[in-house]
Amino acid sequence: MSVREAIWGEKRAAIEKSLEEVDPDLFRYIRDFAYEEVLARPGLDLKTRELLAITALIALGSPKELATHLEGALRVGATEGEVRETILQSALFLGFPRALAAMRLFHAVLKGRGAPHEGER
Amino acid sequence: MSVREAIWGEKRAAIEKSLEEVDPDLFRYIRDFAYEEVLARPGLDLKTRELLAITALIALGSPKELATHLEGALRVGATEGEVRETILQSALFLGFPRALAAMRLFHAVLKGRGAPHEGER
Amino acid sequence: MSVREAIWGEKRAAIEKSLEEVDPDLFRYIRDFAYEEVLARPGLDLKTRELLAITALIALGSPKELATHLEGALRVGATEGEVRETILQSALFLGFPRALAAMRLFHAVLKGRGAPHEGER
Amino acid sequence: MSVREAIWGEKRAAIEKSLEEVDPDLFRYIRDFAYEEVLARPGLDLKTRELLAITALIALGSPKELATHLEGALRVGATEGEVRETILQSALFLGFPRALAAMRLFHAVLKGRGAPHEGER
Amino acid sequence: MSVREAIWGEKRAAIEKSLEEVDPDLFRYIRDFAYEEVLARPGLDLKTRELLAITALIALGSPKELATHLEGALRVGATEGEVRETILQSALFLGFPRALAAMRLFHAVLKGRGAPHEGER
Amino acid sequence: MSVREAIWGEKRAAIEKSLEEVDPDLFRYIRDFAYEEVLARPGLDLKTRELLAITALIALGSPKELATHLEGALRVGATEGEVRETILQSALFLGFPRALAAMRLFHAVLKGRGAPHEGER
Repeated sequence: MSVREAIWGEKRAAIEKSLEEVDPDLFRYIRDFAYEEVLARPGLDLKTRELLAITALIALGSPKELATHLEGALRVGATEGEVRETILQSALFLGFPRALAAMRLFHAVLKGRGAPHEGER
Repeated sequence: MSVREAIWGEKRAAIEKSLEEVDPDLFRYIRDFAYEEVLARPGLDLKTRELLAITALIALGSPKELATHLEGALRVGATEGEVRETILQSALFLGFPRALAAMRLFHAVLKGRGAPHEGER
Repeated sequence: MSVREAIWGEKRAAIEKSLEEVDPDLFRYIRDFAYEEVLARPGLDLKTRELLAITALIALGSPKELATHLEGALRVGATEGEVRETILQSALFLGFPRALAAMRLFHAVLKGRGAPHEGER
Repeated sequence: MSVREAIWGEKRAAIEKSLEEVDPDLFRYIRDFAYEEVLARPGLDLKTRELLAITALIALGSPKELATHLEGALRVGATEGEVRETILQSALFLGFPRALAAMRLFHAVLKGRGAPHEGER
Repeated sequence: MSVREAIWGEKRAAIEKSLEEVDPDLFRYIRDFAYEEVLARPGLDLKTRELLAITALIALGSPKELATHLEGALRVGATEGEVRETILQSALFLGFPRALAAMRLFHAVLKGRGAPHEGER
Repeated sequence: MSVREAIWGEKRAAIEKSLEEVDPDLFRYIRDFAYEEVLARPGLDLKTRELLAITALIALGSPKELATHLEGALRVGATEGEVRETILQSALFLGFPRALAAMRLFHAVLKGRGAPHEGER
């Protein structure tokens, strides 16, 4: 399974279509370099990589891309609790406003996915 | 063992003395809230927490604090290779200049610690 | 009166309910550490603290949290004119785009609160 | 033709009215200092200045102000292709999430302006 | 007394000579627009303006410019304690690493100025 | 001539040796993806690309990488005056402290290269 399949899951076709429409070259770099070259490297498991991605995106304050990787982290096996810890910890390094905005977004992502995941927290 | 002992190791006494001298209240918040309350939470192991800290500090571009957690990551069990992967991946989210500056700093940290760690990469 | 009552005013109950729903632990840290420990410290009056908060939030570019403290500044006694000066000055340090986005948000906040405050500007 | 006429084009009157309403002093600084003093300097053509503005605004992540200069770049003679290259290159320095958000915004700007500009890409 | 005299104090001539040598146009903008137009506005006292400047510079992480305004704040009447509170509070909004770096710099500034100022803390 | 030869000039061998020593994989990505794939794209001349790089690096506040591209811009044909305009303009978007730090660095770069370049300003 490609890294994109693992992280984007059932949204993969829609995301790729949208990216290609927005800019075919940027899409190609994101697909071939970002996902299938760098994120596909051995040496760190995908779950850890997605938690790192979440931290970087909290620092940037990019909500759309953050939502993608909040979902991605859950898809590659992070529990709801692990994502919450990642966001909580970011308050120390990046301040409470960034952490709060991220947690609100995660709350919305979870509600969009259905009921809170039993036993995960 | 306290989180500070785990992350700061043999430098703990020196770091605490320096922090206290700089500002006793900020020291107290860093010790009691940042380290022994938030970083000490269960739900994520310390190694993952230190890799997340490294990512946040690459985003901020704070070299002194980054050096502390590059060393801290190694102390709590991250291999040299895992730290390198964390820095490499940050290039995707935070750009190559930030990643390069962090990798140069890690190179200096490793040289300050003695020969590259056998079998870790 | 707690710092939260002073800054959040009549929205306090709604804000606390929303924060608790989003994440009870992050809520607790924001309430007990951020508001009632750090912002409650003597040594700087709450009005100055809110103007500092506005500056930090302009730097971060976090609109929702910025709106909270634009309202908060007015609640703890800053005049409309003082908030405008704070935003204007931020253009020097953080650039015109950040200052302009903040001023647009303040304009919207003021309109949501009713007519411009007589004699304050 | 003033720099504002060149960059804002047919939207000039509406932008100025909105800025003046938001804050007359900030409007005056933006008009007299930012546009007619600094951006009006000789030594760099307006097209290059607008591409630099785009890069700075990708770094800040300010969508509304970025949209203004994405349109402005096209108005002062940048081709669609040159703007795309500017955004693509920003991925190297500022990371893929910032570049992707900017490219999505440019895609929306172009759609709002009508069909893709023949022969420009 | 000009704003530059108030903030730069006895270092004014040296700072102006250095700025002029670095770039005469940038110097002119800093002198005439930043200091004598914006920072000179009524509506906020200089002490508050310097504390806001410190917060913005902690966000940027610019040590040289931060040192200038840490000294400037003391010159226009802020106590050591008020500057410490400003830095401490920034930890909430901008994270502990930024606050710690700023406090270390302030500690160095104070040592460069002689013994801690009696009765100020 | 490769993009690296154009931008790094006579320092190419030293830079590559240093990058390879710091991390061979990051070096490979910088060489093959950043320089010879993205910066080598047609559609924008190298001079414009280097001025964009300078703007992005002023935003990041990364002095070492900024120095590389301040020199690179001069190498690929930007005049001293064009680089100064790029830095001056950044004050509008990114604030005066960032612009001033960059101008100081450029001043040092120019002094390291010998006398100011006649007729370029």
